[in-house]
Amino acid sequence: MISDNIMDIGQGQQQEDFFEGTEKLLELWFESTRPGCKSLRLIPRFELDEICKLAECEIISEMHNESCDSYVLSESSLFVSDNRLILKTCGTTVPLNALDKIMICAKKYANQTELTNVFYSRKNFLRPSMQPEVHSSIDDECMHLDKYVKNGTAYCLGGLRDDRWYLYTCNPPRAYLSKADHTLEIIMQDLDREVMDTFTMEQSVDGYHATKLSGIDKLVPSNTKIDSKLFEPCGYSMNGLIGDTDEYVTIHVTPEPEYSYVSFETNQSQLCLFSQLVKVIATFRPNRFLLTVCADDGSDKGRLAQKDMMKAMLPGFKRVDFQMVITSEHAVMYARYERDQYIKEICK
Amino acid sequence: MISDNIMDIGQGQQQEDFFEGTEKLLELWFESTRPGCKSLRLIPRFELDEICKLAECEIISEMHNESCDSYVLSESSLFVSDNRLILKTCGTTVPLNALDKIMICAKKYANQTELTNVFYSRKNFLRPSMQPEVHSSIDDECMHLDKYVKNGTAYCLGGLRDDRWYLYTCNPPRAYLSKADHTLEIIMQDLDREVMDTFTMEQSVDGYHATKLSGIDKLVPSNTKIDSKLFEPCGYSMNGLIGDTDEYVTIHVTPEPEYSYVSFETNQSQLCLFSQLVKVIATFRPNRFLLTVCADDGSDKGRLAQKDMMKAMLPGFKRVDFQMVITSEHAVMYARYERDQYIKEICK
Repeated sequence: MISDNIMDIGQGQQQEDFFEGTEKLLELWFESTRPGCKSLRLIPRFELDEICKLAECEIISEMHNESCDSYVLSESSLFVSDNRLILKTCGTTVPLNALDKIMICAKKYANQTELTNVFYSRKNFLRPSMQPEVHSSIDDECMHLDKYVKNGTAYCLGGLRDDRWYLYTCNPPRAYLSKADHTLEIIMQDLDREVMDTFTMEQSVDGYHATKLSGIDKLVPSNTKIDSKLFEPCGYSMNGLIGDTDEYVTIHVTPEPEYSYVSFETNQSQLCLFSQLVKVIATFRPNRFLLTVCADDGSDKGRLAQKDMMKAMLPGFKRVDFQMVITSEHAVMYARYERDQYIKEICK
Repeated sequence: MISDNIMDIGQGQQQEDFFEGTEKLLELWFESTRPGCKSLRLIPRFELDEICKLAECEIISEMHNESCDSYVLSESSLFVSDNRLILKTCGTTVPLNALDKIMICAKKYANQTELTNVFYSRKNFLRPSMQPEVHSSIDDECMHLDKYVKNGTAYCLGGLRDDRWYLYTCNPPRAYLSKADHTLEIIMQDLDREVMDTFTMEQSVDGYHATKLSGIDKLVPSNTKIDSKLFEPCGYSMNGLIGDTDEYVTIHVTPEPEYSYVSFETNQSQLCLFSQLVKVIATFRPNRFLLTVCADDGSDKGRLAQKDMMKAMLPGFKRVDFQMVITSEHAVMYARYERDQYIKEICK
């Protein structure tokens, strides 16, 4: 089987010169209808700190609305709502090592014992050999997830030897009603230098400033409450909570030119997802990116976005890969784009 | 990465009790427009014998029409037309070992030196550990193919840990015009016992008899010339050439109940591919199957079939997986079906 290591690039580079922007994204959905179930938001902060510690990162900022708690982490983000927990971490963090503790806390504080759905996903790492053992291959990650998930299944979207995206999920029992959720994720690489410079201490004073300067504040629905952080000497994270819903936006920027990486993720339902995509690409100006749209059967917005994106052209870009997976409960669309060489040359 | 070995089933079984019906399918397209190019059909029989020997099988029967030469092999089939060669072999054969010789013969006899497209595909093996080294994983197969193919890329369609289908192909240079070809492949497992018994020496006298008894003669377009072979004590292969075109049908049956396997493959353009599918399923009555439809950009029939199959319901079956890959030149549709448990129970 194609090993992750085949794509291990830049091994000659010194480790200290490199940061793996690629996030591991763990999204857990718990049963919410059984009598006695309580909100996951009852898990106290010290336990969330412990969960993050096990994943090898820490909470550096928090923000709340009526439906969701948002935490900016030293490496990416954590969102907790009544029956959904999202842990997204980059670098060499180990989110799967936090699973035991998450399950224990869900039971102890929310009387939640049953996962109704699980999504674990990531792009292929740039430097898989630098990852800790649990995350050293999708194979290992699957085996770890199998301890918590019944009928887990995994897909590789994209070519086995190109940039690609792995998804582990499960086929939930039919008893659970279909949700109407959707998620748009855009993973960008090789980004415009000028845009990336915005996310350095040289150009921006703090997260708030970088958010304005880069235009991120205009990118998200207008009623988004933003918690952003600029890192020293560079790097940026933001969580946004939309109105008082559990809809969120989260953006993470690794601006170093050698391995520039930006991720954008949202489950917002205010903007059409295709126009959201266009805004994101116009703001960050990547030379290549991949995008995924996951849509539950009940999500008209998500399904519509998939249809739009299947047909749509993005001026200046060539779609080099397109894939779709349809399971009994949801549909996942994957596409990879590269800027036309010509345009890439002019832009230099 | 998920190793093939995870799915190695029945390892306890003695090797002599087992036959790997799963075929390795190699389809090579050569440049046909360059001045001086001649037909691959000029490759003489003794060289084809040598090619098969390198793949570890042999020609046992041949048939010809104006556009194509068809060979039934001890393990599956070989088709040679002017600029396309298809080598499909099952068991523990090594078709990739024949690639060198094929390229040498294409040059020597047809002045053909350039591959314009390559498709190598197979389902996951039931017993990967029994395969020879070159075919021990898709990773190894890709590396071998890379010696002959520029820009080779590979996909895994279906879950990484379920029944799945691997495809290696290349992005051909834009200079080559898009063909209008399409291929429907149906890979069936766990088939109806009564149907499978047709393909034993106990019930049928020879290939011709088994073709009639099973209804295969009614399954294919009416102007199909059939070359079929019944094996001792069981097993069946047929090649069909349609009219005087290079359209073909090929069917291979491994009837043993413990590992029953039937493959159906065609590029015919007379019947609608969806009705072809329904006829195949009604004839062989599998409990589970996967199907792929590869369609070049120019193939309306292929694209239409993909659309049909994306929406269509097959009564009695549940679609458990659906995937689509769209590249710059063609679209590949993959679906996996299982008979509804209820119906499966009644049918027992």
